[in-house]
Amino acid sequence: MKTYNLGIIGFGTVGAGVVATIQKNGELLARRTGVQLVITKVADLDIVSDRGVTLAPGVLGTDAMALIESPEVDVVVELVGGTTVARKFITEALKRGKPVVTANKALLATYGEELFTLARKHNTEIYFEASVGGGIPCIKALREGLVANRCQMIYGILNGTCNYILTRMEQEQADFAAVLQSATEAGYAEANPSMDVDGYDTAHKTAILASLVYGKWFKVDDVEVQGIRQVTLKDIDYAAHLGYRIKLLAVIKESGGRIQLGVHPSLIPGESQLGHVNGVYNAVWVRGDVSGTTMYYGRGAGRDATSSAVVADIMDIALNHLHGCPNRVSAFPTYPEYQGLMYSDEVVSRYYLRLQVADRPGVLARISGILGRYQISIASVTQHEVKLPAVPMVILTHQAREADMKQAISEISREDCVVQEPVLFHIEDLVAD
Amino acid sequence: MKTYNLGIIGFGTVGAGVVATIQKNGELLARRTGVQLVITKVADLDIVSDRGVTLAPGVLGTDAMALIESPEVDVVVELVGGTTVARKFITEALKRGKPVVTANKALLATYGEELFTLARKHNTEIYFEASVGGGIPCIKALREGLVANRCQMIYGILNGTCNYILTRMEQEQADFAAVLQSATEAGYAEANPSMDVDGYDTAHKTAILASLVYGKWFKVDDVEVQGIRQVTLKDIDYAAHLGYRIKLLAVIKESGGRIQLGVHPSLIPGESQLGHVNGVYNAVWVRGDVSGTTMYYGRGAGRDATSSAVVADIMDIALNHLHGCPNRVSAFPTYPEYQGLMYSDEVVSRYYLRLQVADRPGVLARISGILGRYQISIASVTQHEVKLPAVPMVILTHQAREADMKQAISEISREDCVVQEPVLFHIEDLVAD
Repeated sequence: MKTYNLGIIGFGTVGAGVVATIQKNGELLARRTGVQLVITKVADLDIVSDRGVTLAPGVLGTDAMALIESPEVDVVVELVGGTTVARKFITEALKRGKPVVTANKALLATYGEELFTLARKHNTEIYFEASVGGGIPCIKALREGLVANRCQMIYGILNGTCNYILTRMEQEQADFAAVLQSATEAGYAEANPSMDVDGYDTAHKTAILASLVYGKWFKVDDVEVQGIRQVTLKDIDYAAHLGYRIKLLAVIKESGGRIQLGVHPSLIPGESQLGHVNGVYNAVWVRGDVSGTTMYYGRGAGRDATSSAVVADIMDIALNHLHGCPNRVSAFPTYPEYQGLMYSDEVVSRYYLRLQVADRPGVLARISGILGRYQISIASVTQHEVKLPAVPMVILTHQAREADMKQAISEISREDCVVQEPVLFHIEDLVAD
Repeated sequence: MKTYNLGIIGFGTVGAGVVATIQKNGELLARRTGVQLVITKVADLDIVSDRGVTLAPGVLGTDAMALIESPEVDVVVELVGGTTVARKFITEALKRGKPVVTANKALLATYGEELFTLARKHNTEIYFEASVGGGIPCIKALREGLVANRCQMIYGILNGTCNYILTRMEQEQADFAAVLQSATEAGYAEANPSMDVDGYDTAHKTAILASLVYGKWFKVDDVEVQGIRQVTLKDIDYAAHLGYRIKLLAVIKESGGRIQLGVHPSLIPGESQLGHVNGVYNAVWVRGDVSGTTMYYGRGAGRDATSSAVVADIMDIALNHLHGCPNRVSAFPTYPEYQGLMYSDEVVSRYYLRLQVADRPGVLARISGILGRYQISIASVTQHEVKLPAVPMVILTHQAREADMKQAISEISREDCVVQEPVLFHIEDLVAD
């Protein structure tokens, strides 16, 4: 039996989960792989709080640099999060030729190129399964399982907080603000929920997935981001009436060698697989040119699910090390296959447009006239009879250029009969391959 | 750039698909992995038919043994199927220390232990991603992505033909026989559909998945098998009325160290992820003790989807070989963690029971009396008013022991008021973790 020694930086929820998982299933892991994982060092500023797991004497300390430098540490597991000290710790580990496992999506989406270049320079490696999709082994699926495919598109439900909020809004017929508040109180949303509900967390994960499948570094700034604050219960109900559900969707598409990256509240068919991903669950839906559609579903966050992914990464690195094959698969291969980014104005999509309009004759004619001038064809219009001065009008379009749509919206919002800022979401029909 | 040489035995649909995939995406694969795959030999008895792909002169021949022995072949890709010559070819390859890729589930479910023992003896390996779930990288997910988990249960929709038939019966409100006939005419079912519709194909895949996750060899004879011929349109409609859909489900469950293996038409919640796996699509739903529930979805068969999996396996083996780490992960690790099989009589499940009963007073009292004597508790009864001498009665039970259920059914079927053989399916509630 071979042994492999871990140093874990960050003894919070996930750090304690990794320790608990190895303590619980370490023997089984060893029988499966021939490798016994040993937790030799854990570093955290807080060495007092009870995490519900017991470490051997001398394992827990406050000095992360000592952990990185220790000859008793074969792999550094970075679980502190953030982009400051985490970057430093990973850099110092890589400079010493030590492999790194991280769950840090913000760091990879921001400094991925720098860190992977450094890893290559020192002939070591970074694994990051837990950075996207929590316990779902989707990074491994994309990098290895689908290696024979050109990736045509990916749709991802990648933020559990947003999906939980949208699911509860629908199931309880409740408003965004009310659900957000109760989610915060229940611990399902952060005190400052902006990273989640404004779409940035999903954008980080979008950049990581796109970089992985297209062999080119994309950053979070390359992703067009729209959060879920604009989604009202009315929108969810209109969508349901039309056979759709609204999800915050990561959208990655390749067309003519260029890549479209977006995060948008999107209408997807209610009867689709992706339409049934509810609550805190995540999913990655992938269209490969050979495999056709595959989908990967599971818990996107949480102590245990994340630990499952972190330990799988540790084992991959341990096997590489003990079998003398570091970088057997390049974690982030880069190659000149794709040309770059598609700008959002060039994007072609179907759209959901909700307007609040004056209830008087000629309104639909004016609005449809503007859309028509921009070559935007209407698929359906919904306007229910309401005895109010202003009423909602919901328009679904056929495929249209985003640049045209933006100009049309700009004109529409200047119309007297339009009494609120128009709301615009994408429609993704997930057409069967 | 390193090169790796393939010999493909079997130039049928999948063999031609593998060739097409490597011709189409070989350059991209090489950029991603540093390995150029080269098709040096293809063997088939038919070297005349057009497969829509062009091989270099001298590559195609009829002599499989010459291919296996050729120094120009680094890996043998077995795509002939069946359990006779395929077994011989794989054995001869392994004896020469050559790794093997196969999509042959019948062979692995029957001779897996023999072949993997031989591979170990000769320090070489067998990869088999395409044997279960077609283009879905589910073997890799179970073996590597979920390596840190004890597998608590697996539900699989693993046979595209059955799922296609059940989906069409529901969508078109058509009978089994009519749908099977049109599926056969359209090429979605074999001329002899028994392997599929009687559940044996699913049983082969069940045995492979169970062997993989429990480190112990299970055979197809260890799997309790029930096919879909008994499923009528009436059952599908009753299930729908009660909030369920009927799928042919592979069921693998661990309890107290023992393993339950079954293939049954099963009622699963209509709103679940698995309930929305339609048509020829497959899915593997896994409950790990750390990851919680994950699910893997995609095309379960077909030239391209299968090729995607075969080429991923070839690349894994090529990387192992070129990085000098054969058997870096044990394809089928065996270890003494689990005790063996749970016999079907010990199984505990909920049940769907459909009886055809005489429409007269006291029938329900007699039947519920028999169930009660065997400690089987009724969850719901459906009996619609029909003006006929005999009417259907549908009973859903709470959890009950299969042994009790079988005895109760035996008594029930002897009752005068029961005019047809009772129909019994399992109910799997896929309770959220």
